[in-house]
Amino acid sequence: MLTYHFRNKKEGSLYDQLYAFLKEDILSGRLEADYRLPSRRAFARNLGISIVTVETAYEKLEAEGYIYSLPRKGFYVSRIDRSFVGAGEGAGEDPPVPFSDLDRKEDDRIVYDFASSSTLPELFPFTAWARIMRSVISDQSRELVERAPGGGIRSLREAIAAHLLEFRGMQASPGQIIVGAGTEYLYGLILQLLGRDRLYAVEDPGYSKIARIYRAGGTGVCHLPVDREGISVKALEERGADIVHISPAHHFPTGTVMPVSRRYELLGWACAREGRYIIEDDYDSELRMDGRPVPTLRSMDPADRVIYVNTFSKTLASTIRISYMVLPVKLAERFYRELGFYSCTVSSFQQYTLARFISSGGFGSHINRMRRYYRKVRDALLHEIQASPAFSGCRITEEEAGLHFLLETGTSLSDRELKERALDFGIRITCLSDYFLDPSDAPGGILLVSYSGIRPEEIPGAVGALGQVLSLQ
Amino acid sequence: MLTYHFRNKKEGSLYDQLYAFLKEDILSGRLEADYRLPSRRAFARNLGISIVTVETAYEKLEAEGYIYSLPRKGFYVSRIDRSFVGAGEGAGEDPPVPFSDLDRKEDDRIVYDFASSSTLPELFPFTAWARIMRSVISDQSRELVERAPGGGIRSLREAIAAHLLEFRGMQASPGQIIVGAGTEYLYGLILQLLGRDRLYAVEDPGYSKIARIYRAGGTGVCHLPVDREGISVKALEERGADIVHISPAHHFPTGTVMPVSRRYELLGWACAREGRYIIEDDYDSELRMDGRPVPTLRSMDPADRVIYVNTFSKTLASTIRISYMVLPVKLAERFYRELGFYSCTVSSFQQYTLARFISSGGFGSHINRMRRYYRKVRDALLHEIQASPAFSGCRITEEEAGLHFLLETGTSLSDRELKERALDFGIRITCLSDYFLDPSDAPGGILLVSYSGIRPEEIPGAVGALGQVLSLQ
Repeated sequence: MLTYHFRNKKEGSLYDQLYAFLKEDILSGRLEADYRLPSRRAFARNLGISIVTVETAYEKLEAEGYIYSLPRKGFYVSRIDRSFVGAGEGAGEDPPVPFSDLDRKEDDRIVYDFASSSTLPELFPFTAWARIMRSVISDQSRELVERAPGGGIRSLREAIAAHLLEFRGMQASPGQIIVGAGTEYLYGLILQLLGRDRLYAVEDPGYSKIARIYRAGGTGVCHLPVDREGISVKALEERGADIVHISPAHHFPTGTVMPVSRRYELLGWACAREGRYIIEDDYDSELRMDGRPVPTLRSMDPADRVIYVNTFSKTLASTIRISYMVLPVKLAERFYRELGFYSCTVSSFQQYTLARFISSGGFGSHINRMRRYYRKVRDALLHEIQASPAFSGCRITEEEAGLHFLLETGTSLSDRELKERALDFGIRITCLSDYFLDPSDAPGGILLVSYSGIRPEEIPGAVGALGQVLSLQ
Repeated sequence: MLTYHFRNKKEGSLYDQLYAFLKEDILSGRLEADYRLPSRRAFARNLGISIVTVETAYEKLEAEGYIYSLPRKGFYVSRIDRSFVGAGEGAGEDPPVPFSDLDRKEDDRIVYDFASSSTLPELFPFTAWARIMRSVISDQSRELVERAPGGGIRSLREAIAAHLLEFRGMQASPGQIIVGAGTEYLYGLILQLLGRDRLYAVEDPGYSKIARIYRAGGTGVCHLPVDREGISVKALEERGADIVHISPAHHFPTGTVMPVSRRYELLGWACAREGRYIIEDDYDSELRMDGRPVPTLRSMDPADRVIYVNTFSKTLASTIRISYMVLPVKLAERFYRELGFYSCTVSSFQQYTLARFISSGGFGSHINRMRRYYRKVRDALLHEIQASPAFSGCRITEEEAGLHFLLETGTSLSDRELKERALDFGIRITCLSDYFLDPSDAPGGILLVSYSGIRPEEIPGAVGALGQVLSLQ
């Protein structure tokens, strides 16, 4: 009779093991089609296990079609098409990809990371999120697998509209809100909506990924200088750009808040010609810690020329791929007409979870907690820097910034030397010049201190190490 | 003293209600900054509730920054920036979007849907999936919010590689597998990878969304005729296409399986010139019910010119937005070099869940269950049709098809009349001509009977109604 040797229970229950043994033997052909399996009783006795265990394994194999039963006769092996089982063994191995994102390794010298824009995993509101996920699993199992609107499920878009009103004082109808898997994906949709035969202007300095995405999307991109008030409208006119992508509430990396005068100048530019649009990237407005909240450009714009984009990556976690945009009515119409065939890229499960998290008030509370947490980290960091003589020649530019500030070091080192030396001291950091299209346009020796990746207990060590870097010159 | 009137407990616990009352009064300004809140004891007595309830509400408000405490003095209202609270009320309402995907309504005449490609919600393996989700929540909370590779998390890509070997006899290294939120998103990535200055060929007849996506992506698309063996290689040469998108294992909607000779002809075409690629859309290969499994084109191709694309939408649920592609080594290298900056569009949570579902064997069992289920539905449907005299003049073309077959009705009605009349009988159905670029190229009177949206108990009613439609002519 068939005999199998069970392994330690850690490798699976007896039932799991028996099921796997039989399945393997059926797939490999060792048990041929129509072979009659031992009776449950005899098999159980032979293997020294309970009849129920054999029964359960047989039932599962039958349910999955590996075996079949004849009334009052017993269980038999099904005829399985095995033409592909193990076929891979014969096929030539693919040559390995010389380099993939799975091989990437962090520089193991890094102890303190001032260059990360990721949120720390421990700040994610895991308990609340998991509780809501569980209740979505039990209450909404049906909706989770039913066809959902391409722009996102209704309850999430309504929750976002309510959130925008409460946190940004901005009106938007759920039909104007389009949910997508990350802002990168939404930029791609915007390109399809506005066309690739247009010139897109981005900020210089700025977040370089934005230009890369537009370029990969197949459109022309120009970099326009940013002065103390934001992007230059004059340059915008001169270059003949049609679309401009900006972050007026908080420019990255300088932290500049665009003043009202420049905002109106920009809105004037947008209205002056048909087809001009402003993409307002409000990426970290919710994490503002000081000063008055800055109104959105969109809420100042009666002409409806602003596409508002925001994300939950900063406020929740970068691996929660949920972002949204608010389209002008005219573009929303065009979206439904021309791009309405796309399915939403966010799974319904995540959408229902986030919708409940927002509408239950959990998201609002979480934002308040994050603000208080980051304010504490920033204050501790500034205090430590100001107390250390190594930083006596330094100047800090804050501009009510979000999760980073600029540190003018006055060093005589080149930016490259500065970053290399910092790495020797365990610090990863970037310089302002890293965000310029042409680094030689940038003033040297200015560090971008981004503290969303630094834990409070690391601050003394991190500042001490940075002080040593600066003292060495 | 402050007095609030509690509502029925159904509207929230006393603690929740007190928290909400106070928060509202603080946000509205009715309680001014630095106002001293009643002592816990006095407030509890006044409201007729327990001290603990007041304490808990105060603690939450303090944690969120609405109030602050002074040791041995009590609790005070924080200075809240209220400039945006309620600002929306003043702002002009956005005009509503005249039409959005939230307004869409199904035709309420539809009782039997033979035109849906969605899976039925009740077939989703909810219990197993929810169990895995729960274990991911408890075991992998850290990984869930940590930065993940752009192509997908390692364990999912390894699980997919193992699945491809087991179910499709195909070798692929995890570094060649790119995970994305739906095949529509992946087609967009392919466009960026191969370039928009290329001509993409699609099948005619075919799934019209594919051409729409390529066109929305900004590239030229040509429709090539499909004969009994698949897309015409001669037409491909003549039109000068560079890329061809096909489903060789199971053409939609005709169900044709591309024979080996045509496959080699196509591979020969791809190798004849640098930069030619074949996109192999293997959308429903796992749900094949009869006949020998058809090998993938990719596994026949030593020249590495095939981009293999597949999805979990058909096997799991259309709202699970997870698809993947297997890139040729050369394109994988290009992907990491040029598009490696993109973040993965699928949340880590869904990726970890699916990885475990596959590697635990749950996905394999699910596929087997689905195959058996759909075989039963199809057999019942065919049986019902063959037993009904209303279908005596009809011919069924199956070609070992996946979840649909063609029904030649021999009717004298036009396809438009046929569909309209079917709707009057509660049936939504499409005709073969709906999938032709030019419907007049198509033979008339051929229905596409897609049964993934029909429940077994609906079959007699659905076939009866369809019989009536056909008898009326």
